[in-house]
Amino acid sequence: MRATVMYAAGDVRIEDVPDARLIEPTDAVVRVTRACICGSDLWPYQSMKPSETGRRMGHEFVGVVDAVGPDVRTLKVGGLVVTPFLWSDGSCVFCREGLHTSCLHGGRYGSDDVDGGQGEAVRVPQADGTLVALPVGEDDALMPSLLTLSDVMGTGHHAALHAQVAQGKIAAVVGDGAVGLCGVIAAKRLGAEQVIMLGRHKDRIALAEEFGATDIVSERGGDAVERVKELTGGFGAHSVLECVGHTQAVETALAIARPGGAVGRVGVPQHEAIPMATETFFDNITISGGPAPVRAYIEELMPDVLEERINPGRVLDQVTNLDGVPEGYRRMNDRESIKVMVKF
Amino acid sequence: MRATVMYAAGDVRIEDVPDARLIEPTDAVVRVTRACICGSDLWPYQSMKPSETGRRMGHEFVGVVDAVGPDVRTLKVGGLVVTPFLWSDGSCVFCREGLHTSCLHGGRYGSDDVDGGQGEAVRVPQADGTLVALPVGEDDALMPSLLTLSDVMGTGHHAALHAQVAQGKIAAVVGDGAVGLCGVIAAKRLGAEQVIMLGRHKDRIALAEEFGATDIVSERGGDAVERVKELTGGFGAHSVLECVGHTQAVETALAIARPGGAVGRVGVPQHEAIPMATETFFDNITISGGPAPVRAYIEELMPDVLEERINPGRVLDQVTNLDGVPEGYRRMNDRESIKVMVKF
Repeated sequence: MRATVMYAAGDVRIEDVPDARLIEPTDAVVRVTRACICGSDLWPYQSMKPSETGRRMGHEFVGVVDAVGPDVRTLKVGGLVVTPFLWSDGSCVFCREGLHTSCLHGGRYGSDDVDGGQGEAVRVPQADGTLVALPVGEDDALMPSLLTLSDVMGTGHHAALHAQVAQGKIAAVVGDGAVGLCGVIAAKRLGAEQVIMLGRHKDRIALAEEFGATDIVSERGGDAVERVKELTGGFGAHSVLECVGHTQAVETALAIARPGGAVGRVGVPQHEAIPMATETFFDNITISGGPAPVRAYIEELMPDVLEERINPGRVLDQVTNLDGVPEGYRRMNDRESIKVMVKF
Repeated sequence: MRATVMYAAGDVRIEDVPDARLIEPTDAVVRVTRACICGSDLWPYQSMKPSETGRRMGHEFVGVVDAVGPDVRTLKVGGLVVTPFLWSDGSCVFCREGLHTSCLHGGRYGSDDVDGGQGEAVRVPQADGTLVALPVGEDDALMPSLLTLSDVMGTGHHAALHAQVAQGKIAAVVGDGAVGLCGVIAAKRLGAEQVIMLGRHKDRIALAEEFGATDIVSERGGDAVERVKELTGGFGAHSVLECVGHTQAVETALAIARPGGAVGRVGVPQHEAIPMATETFFDNITISGGPAPVRAYIEELMPDVLEERINPGRVLDQVTNLDGVPEGYRRMNDRESIKVMVKF
């Protein structure tokens, strides 16, 4: 079969790899019908040291179950499924608490004997715990939005939950990437009255407004903080969704939180320590979040997608095929695309 | 009148100062009957640069209302009251949200024209919003515990709330000072099943056990982390109360939190950044807390004191009079006393 392999920063290739196959009795093999390139794939794209064996890429996909191991009980061959970006058993103490990202028997796609999602097929471990059946056909018009349940929509939701968004609150979203845009959807969906998007790219701002952003702040640093304060009666936002991870973005997120407010962070930190220990202390700011246990959110979010109350698939602004994946990386890295969908 | 004035590190004097008096129509003057020395008073005691005018000390006290301004409506002259460690109007947007520490018209004792609590009388601004009537006589046997509602008991409660202590959870308390000990009470009170105290001082450990600590960890650093993991099935505590503020204590607190857990911090940070940005991110640890809005908690905690379900006054292990205050500072600083009560 063919799949995406990264060999070094900027070096993404489509290659023949061994066919995905069942190894453990709890595995499924899924033939991929749609996949994405993730903002987090751009980290190695910018910094990976050359590797002779390469690294299999991709962790967001929808596909058809091709085979199941003897211990798989809930999935049927031929059924369409979506995966969260990590696999998890669904039964350990952390999964039962809804924190599937800390599953005791879970792991990542594209590591060891587990294929990456940007390829023709994937061996999915812990298939019963991981995969969720989709009640539509594989070419359904809602496919882009259903695909976002694999990562970015669930991640935006996680940011909003941990930022304690609730009815009538003021939310601010730092970062206008796919996750930030889904954060706007999530904040609106959870009842935020005012949703301030901090971003600079025209196309993304337009989409944020379509998703429900009420205010746009295109300044940076101290100017952005000042502008958000102006928009919020001088106090800042109750709920801040930090969807970048860079130090400056985190500083901005912490500085625009109102006393007693919360920052939900889903951007992978690019710093060793969280800045502003004292300022956030005296303002009683809560700092929360992490990798999103999207598996816990799929059932809750899916009806809103199926009934078209939310349309997160709009962040997938470009479509390519497997051969177009390397060019897709380049486009996302050069900000010519918000997020690329791969159609098989 | 006489009051406590600090002139430099280690230099605490009892001096004649101008009598406390009404200035604003919303003021009260309170004749102090009991006060405390606070752990936070030890910061200037260890580090204050010499000052010619000195600094008035103390922010925890119980006393009798001696006079009220014309706009004070809820307090009666002659009534016994307890104060939170900050004064606040009780009516601004933050007070209404229960975050009296961010009151728009609030402030600190011992600043400008506001007296410190370690003196014979105090001008209390925003008296209606600040002071809470006590339904007992001024020499009631419960006075030590009622006095802790002014700061340490409310602060321990704040740590427990922000550490998300709930029925059946595992709590860990970092710091065996008066606040940490009150944190044990608070964690137990909110239903924690296991309460692990991290501390090294025999007398404090004994008190922690009396308050409900189920396990004691006297190791430090990595050894302490390992020991807590052993005591918690390998995962760590759901709820960690950080009651110190030193970098090592914060690192320990963050490291012993279980994935998905929460750290409630009430120790004033002695560092510019919160360590372990990445580790806490991947474990979805919530970091919360700050100065405790104890005013918001007095009504909730007082019945438990009056009906003797909790006995936080036990942390006041030494009693002195106003002239004994400088020696009280020395004793607390040398760890000869957990917390000193001043009886007038």
